Amino acid sequence: MVRSERGPLRVTVWGENVHERTEEHVRAIYPDGMHAAVAAGLGDLLGDEVRVHTATLEQPEHGLPAEVIADTDVLTWWGHAAHEDVDDAVVDRVHDAVLGGMGLLALHSAHYSKIFRRLLGTSCSLRWRNEGERELVWTVDPTHPVAAGVPHPIVIEAQEMYGEHFDIPAPDELVFVSSFAGGEVFRGGCGFHRGAGRIFYFSPGDQDYPVYHHPDVRRVLANAVLWAAPAGERRAAPPGSPSMARGWFEGGTG
Amino acid sequence: MVRSERGPLRVTVWGENVHERTEEHVRAIYPDGMHAAVAAGLGDLLGDEVRVHTATLEQPEHGLPAEVIADTDVLTWWGHAAHEDVDDAVVDRVHDAVLGGMGLLALHSAHYSKIFRRLLGTSCSLRWRNEGERELVWTVDPTHPVAAGVPHPIVIEAQEMYGEHFDIPAPDELVFVSSFAGGEVFRGGCGFHRGAGRIFYFSPGDQDYPVYHHPDVRRVLANAVLWAAPAGERRAAPPGSPSMARGWFEGGTG
Amino acid sequence: MVRSERGPLRVTVWGENVHERTEEHVRAIYPDGMHAAVAAGLGDLLGDEVRVHTATLEQPEHGLPAEVIADTDVLTWWGHAAHEDVDDAVVDRVHDAVLGGMGLLALHSAHYSKIFRRLLGTSCSLRWRNEGERELVWTVDPTHPVAAGVPHPIVIEAQEMYGEHFDIPAPDELVFVSSFAGGEVFRGGCGFHRGAGRIFYFSPGDQDYPVYHHPDVRRVLANAVLWAAPAGERRAAPPGSPSMARGWFEGGTG
Amino acid sequence: MVRSERGPLRVTVWGENVHERTEEHVRAIYPDGMHAAVAAGLGDLLGDEVRVHTATLEQPEHGLPAEVIADTDVLTWWGHAAHEDVDDAVVDRVHDAVLGGMGLLALHSAHYSKIFRRLLGTSCSLRWRNEGERELVWTVDPTHPVAAGVPHPIVIEAQEMYGEHFDIPAPDELVFVSSFAGGEVFRGGCGFHRGAGRIFYFSPGDQDYPVYHHPDVRRVLANAVLWAAPAGERRAAPPGSPSMARGWFEGGTG
Repeated sequence: MVRSERGPLRVTVWGENVHERTEEHVRAIYPDGMHAAVAAGLGDLLGDEVRVHTATLEQPEHGLPAEVIADTDVLTWWGHAAHEDVDDAVVDRVHDAVLGGMGLLALHSAHYSKIFRRLLGTSCSLRWRNEGERELVWTVDPTHPVAAGVPHPIVIEAQEMYGEHFDIPAPDELVFVSSFAGGEVFRGGCGFHRGAGRIFYFSPGDQDYPVYHHPDVRRVLANAVLWAAPAGERRAAPPGSPSMARGWFEGGTG
Repeated sequence: MVRSERGPLRVTVWGENVHERTEEHVRAIYPDGMHAAVAAGLGDLLGDEVRVHTATLEQPEHGLPAEVIADTDVLTWWGHAAHEDVDDAVVDRVHDAVLGGMGLLALHSAHYSKIFRRLLGTSCSLRWRNEGERELVWTVDPTHPVAAGVPHPIVIEAQEMYGEHFDIPAPDELVFVSSFAGGEVFRGGCGFHRGAGRIFYFSPGDQDYPVYHHPDVRRVLANAVLWAAPAGERRAAPPGSPSMARGWFEGGTG
Repeated sequence: MVRSERGPLRVTVWGENVHERTEEHVRAIYPDGMHAAVAAGLGDLLGDEVRVHTATLEQPEHGLPAEVIADTDVLTWWGHAAHEDVDDAVVDRVHDAVLGGMGLLALHSAHYSKIFRRLLGTSCSLRWRNEGERELVWTVDPTHPVAAGVPHPIVIEAQEMYGEHFDIPAPDELVFVSSFAGGEVFRGGCGFHRGAGRIFYFSPGDQDYPVYHHPDVRRVLANAVLWAAPAGERRAAPPGSPSMARGWFEGGTG
Repeated sequence: MVRSERGPLRVTVWGENVHERTEEHVRAIYPDGMHAAVAAGLGDLLGDEVRVHTATLEQPEHGLPAEVIADTDVLTWWGHAAHEDVDDAVVDRVHDAVLGGMGLLALHSAHYSKIFRRLLGTSCSLRWRNEGERELVWTVDPTHPVAAGVPHPIVIEAQEMYGEHFDIPAPDELVFVSSFAGGEVFRGGCGFHRGAGRIFYFSPGDQDYPVYHHPDVRRVLANAVLWAAPAGERRAAPPGSPSMARGWFEGGTG
């Protein structure tokens, strides 16, 4: 039951890594890529509880071949400029893994990623404005594990605005709601259960701002990784639909 | 099925009517009481669809004797200064009626009313600041009937701030989230189902501001009355727990 | 607001129409196809409130070209033997329409249809046994409009067993839970909201039994069509993600 | 984070202890009282993770004075014959503690206890039949921690039937649905969040049958105790509604 008895949680941090390679001001904030900053935050906060690995779009199979997915308990996903470049076969693989129990953190502009839309079934559209406004992240579910140890509100001095209406299914667990200096609100911290997997969407984190260096944001990501971790063994694949003989559960062990 | 075939919806607008009688600036905004303004809005917008009646705290049984409750499809409730003066027997009566199918609209400071806390079971506490800030009411469920025909956002130039954390059960239907000029957010439009009854909480509406004269707020209240109306016949009382013979549903009409 | 002022609700009943053409015992139960029985039930119970149209797999574009979808308020879907033969372009079109507000009823084995899985994002797997067992359909939300006027329980003398675990997201509205003679249970009446659309899944209705001639099942389908109907104008398409200038809502009408 | 670092979880098992004292056949099943059997199951399965204490109705303050409640992380509650004999002051105390973070397990006929009805706000009525029928407990949320390690279904050879409609708010987490030999179904495993506290209702467990000696039922109770345990420090009391100065969160630590 205690994590350490099962070995560290295996986290794969996926980054699109396009802005960081092509835009100087992004590279100035994230010299090793946004994925490196996310990975460093998890390592700093969770230490031996996790074993963090990174993968990016330009790698073969986007760094997510079957053996990597099979060796991942929780996958974090950041993408923006190149959602359409993600191969459908990789999306299928990640989709199957989430339904089989792998956790998924969808970060900021990943609201429009193929995998997030595939899992939720809606357009995942929203409203936005990139003027570096102050974002306040308010906790509406104070005892939720993803909110543990974070201030109410988290103050992010400059962020892209994401506003309602956010076209998602009603979240199974609504944890954070943000407001922006311009007055908009956004359901920016949402938990979903799909198949055997847990998905957490967290909106702060645009490439133009050093949000993934913010200590409270790092804390949220670390909490969310722990929350999304599968409780038991991952299933190999989503179950089929077996036929069951009448009374199959009788006289046996269930 | 069409409402007019059943006669108009019977709405009782309950007002505490304390601030209006004791504070000149409130009386200047609501010369006939806040309940009169709420009732006028419903009458103006819903016309022959409703028959609106008002009742106030200082009346015998607070204007809510058994025969009034029995003749009410939807009750609206505004209270603030005198929650503790509401007789428990009246609260019991309203509670039974809601569980039996009567709709309830809990308005603004009614978050702390006996009846709202009784129905929800939590403290219903929140944070507040009364400095006349601009409130923006954002729709997070655009196809919800209570949001029909209202702008996104509703702009209320001056209102008391109500902020999270709002200690309620997770709403069955979250419709509106407000932001305030000072940056706070609030789940200010929430639907709940309890027993056979529907409850809508709507936070705008402090006695110090002319919020119930605001056309969009009036529209929300009218929508909410229609949403909370019982679909069929009201039950006389919450059901007991009957014992059922095995196979009682066989060979009959169910 | 009253439906008749907007003209009748436009319902398209889609049937795979494979079992009925290839299996004599199915044709004996449904000589004009299962879709005809579903359509007849809606017409009988809803009369002038609806205008019912049918479409089947073997027609061009499966009978669902763009102009038919554009002229449909609620689509009902029954499929089983040929899910994979449904063209992805048609699935895309139906998906867009549901997110834009078109209602969808997914019937029985449509749990495995492309469109249902696309909208929900999960495997939608279940357990089953086809031995003609008695199914009891119990209402767990008695005031839900889809349960109006149906007995508690609905008794279906012979049906295919569908059992848990049913791999769907937690329903937004759980209305019916079935039990079977063999002891299994199933969440067989579930409402979902996706985008601007409403989806109702109802499990009774295997091709081997005359379930769509059952008066209570017909009542549920009629109720579900009314429940799933869009409240207002259908959107042409899911919204994109517009950029909003700061303060865009000020000084205007919202 | 690991429980053992905070000391064992402090569990108080409350039993009404009336049937056991007054009915021979109950005493034959539970010679030391039902509470003793529940406590023994928790001790056997959780060992050093818990420190289990029992309390009963006939003790002063029903064995639940303020110092006991203050020293309790999770309270389990079984009552049936004497709900009305529970002092309202004790109910108030338990209610406050749950809102402050204490977990609560409401067992079987505790659906009608004062504390459960107070927390949920509804009548909590149901249908029943006591004929010793086989109950099958099906898991509808296989990855829920309360379902860990239990068969699907749990087979209970003889139990009182509890059937729908169960008049509770829609559960925040629906885990188990039971069927009975007579055909009824029941949402018998439900999680609720109220204030900072977690509540789990589990229906198996009538005094006439040895259900609390059933290994799978014991496992569910052990799981539920762990699930309901407060994550952090218990609050002393539900929060009030503080007034907040504008910008109070600026320049500080939040």
